[in-house]
Amino acid sequence: METKDKAKHLLLGVDLGGTDTKFGLVSPEGAIIEQAKIPTQAERGGEDTMRRIALALDDLLQRHSLKRSDVRGIGFGSPGPLSTSRGVVIDTPNLAWVNVPVRALLEDLMGLPVVLHNDANAAAYGEFWRGAGRGSSIMVLYTLGTGVGGGICMFNDLLVGPGENAGELGHMVLNYKGPRCPCGHVGCLEAFSSAKAVVRDTLAALDGGEPSSLRGVPRDQIKAKWVFEAARDGDALARRIFHGVGWHLGLASGNLINILNVEMFVFGGAMSGAWEVLYDAMLEGARASCLAMPLEDVKFVRAELGENAGIIGAAGLALKEFGN
Amino acid sequence: METKDKAKHLLLGVDLGGTDTKFGLVSPEGAIIEQAKIPTQAERGGEDTMRRIALALDDLLQRHSLKRSDVRGIGFGSPGPLSTSRGVVIDTPNLAWVNVPVRALLEDLMGLPVVLHNDANAAAYGEFWRGAGRGSSIMVLYTLGTGVGGGICMFNDLLVGPGENAGELGHMVLNYKGPRCPCGHVGCLEAFSSAKAVVRDTLAALDGGEPSSLRGVPRDQIKAKWVFEAARDGDALARRIFHGVGWHLGLASGNLINILNVEMFVFGGAMSGAWEVLYDAMLEGARASCLAMPLEDVKFVRAELGENAGIIGAAGLALKEFGN
Repeated sequence: METKDKAKHLLLGVDLGGTDTKFGLVSPEGAIIEQAKIPTQAERGGEDTMRRIALALDDLLQRHSLKRSDVRGIGFGSPGPLSTSRGVVIDTPNLAWVNVPVRALLEDLMGLPVVLHNDANAAAYGEFWRGAGRGSSIMVLYTLGTGVGGGICMFNDLLVGPGENAGELGHMVLNYKGPRCPCGHVGCLEAFSSAKAVVRDTLAALDGGEPSSLRGVPRDQIKAKWVFEAARDGDALARRIFHGVGWHLGLASGNLINILNVEMFVFGGAMSGAWEVLYDAMLEGARASCLAMPLEDVKFVRAELGENAGIIGAAGLALKEFGN
Repeated sequence: METKDKAKHLLLGVDLGGTDTKFGLVSPEGAIIEQAKIPTQAERGGEDTMRRIALALDDLLQRHSLKRSDVRGIGFGSPGPLSTSRGVVIDTPNLAWVNVPVRALLEDLMGLPVVLHNDANAAAYGEFWRGAGRGSSIMVLYTLGTGVGGGICMFNDLLVGPGENAGELGHMVLNYKGPRCPCGHVGCLEAFSSAKAVVRDTLAALDGGEPSSLRGVPRDQIKAKWVFEAARDGDALARRIFHGVGWHLGLASGNLINILNVEMFVFGGAMSGAWEVLYDAMLEGARASCLAMPLEDVKFVRAELGENAGIIGAAGLALKEFGN
């Protein structure tokens, strides 16, 4: 069996989400050999969840006639805040977990070394290692969804930072006279470029009487997805709103170019599906702040690994940690 | 002689400025053994300037009975834009030089290896190596003067970046509806927190009829220094303006904490003399953006090396490059 040949070089990657937990058997080259998912059911608590994940990982290994000892280690991505150095999920609103020692629990259950990282950071490392960011020197991944997540890879590694919380790109303040962000601050990138911001601005524009094809949609069913589709179909209101989403992402990116000389920006998450209406606005926003590098030397691209970025990135971080 | 004992471990650091060029003989521990300066007279051209610098460096060595071969290498800080990898000053408004191959010229003249860095970056490395940033994991230096310069040190090194121009912190856009910056963009940190911004805002407030002790100063003699002194003496207008300077520095710092988890901010340059009226405003500004780390874990301090940061930092970068 091919997988047998690679025994002891194989990795397991886990991407714990609010609804599902995705996991996969990953080759040392970053290819997913097989992946699967189980419902997270976080409400059953951290210990129970880790037990069900361990069972699912064992099943996966058995399907490939592999023993645990054929695997080098497990990379585990989870919503934060969490501590990589302690291996503990500190406090996640998404899971309603407080101080769950994910690393210790899973190491005990599996007898394999585990490294725990923030899910957005794991996805960033996935794109850097095997996705759109391959070969770049400094890469940023934005995860565009309900909020705006981020991750920074540089010096051939994920940037974790001394506070273990680097890459909070969604909370860069871009206009402190702008709208309030869910974090409590004013004018963060997330307050302009998240799906939530799209819905907020669309409702405000409709309430203000602006004409739009979206008037046909019941008020409580306005979603970023419909606004994107209206924008793609040429609706002026929807186009203006997505222009703002892209422009602020570009402005933030220009700041990151000035600070770090980032040469590659990768966009993932559901909202990145609106690429065709975001791209030009991004470049326009970047021109309003980028000074440290010619913008022609910088790439703005879509993520390549889709939903697998987290699994692959977590496995890659395990390889980095336990590879030698 | 003590300096003889350290022969072959010694370094030369040069800090080329628009008016004077400072240079020093530096121990491998970062202590200045002797320093001196000569007028830069950049208008005489790059080759002539390098010749005069080489003569001055030879003089310095002779005063210590040292030969060129007793020195490991030369670190050279210059205003930019410049290329560290090519050793070329590309185009500096301060010197009116275009494409001067500083490294090659000085290496030919001295027969010693030379490393060229941006002056603000050299100063940042100086503070990181031997000054206020000693022992920190990720440190930022702001140089507060006519403009706002910056430098980032992390992973025990200066961050140069793939575009060789990282650390352009003065051009982080903080409010794109703010004042225009000399760089052409709108709302950069420099447009809020430079000496130029202080003068601009003071004149605007005086023109607007705001009462102030500064009314006694002739309009064309308003300088940031006088505004600072008025602020220290309790003048309300001057205090409001310096509050804004500090607040925007703090806001930018909060963004850098979110991005990199910077744990140490060091403030140098003439404007940092206004520390007593800047500090509280900085913390207030940082609270408006900092999310990724508790602000109590972050230090805001004054630079320690003063005018010597550039010489020491350049020497330290030469040690890093040629030390082994």
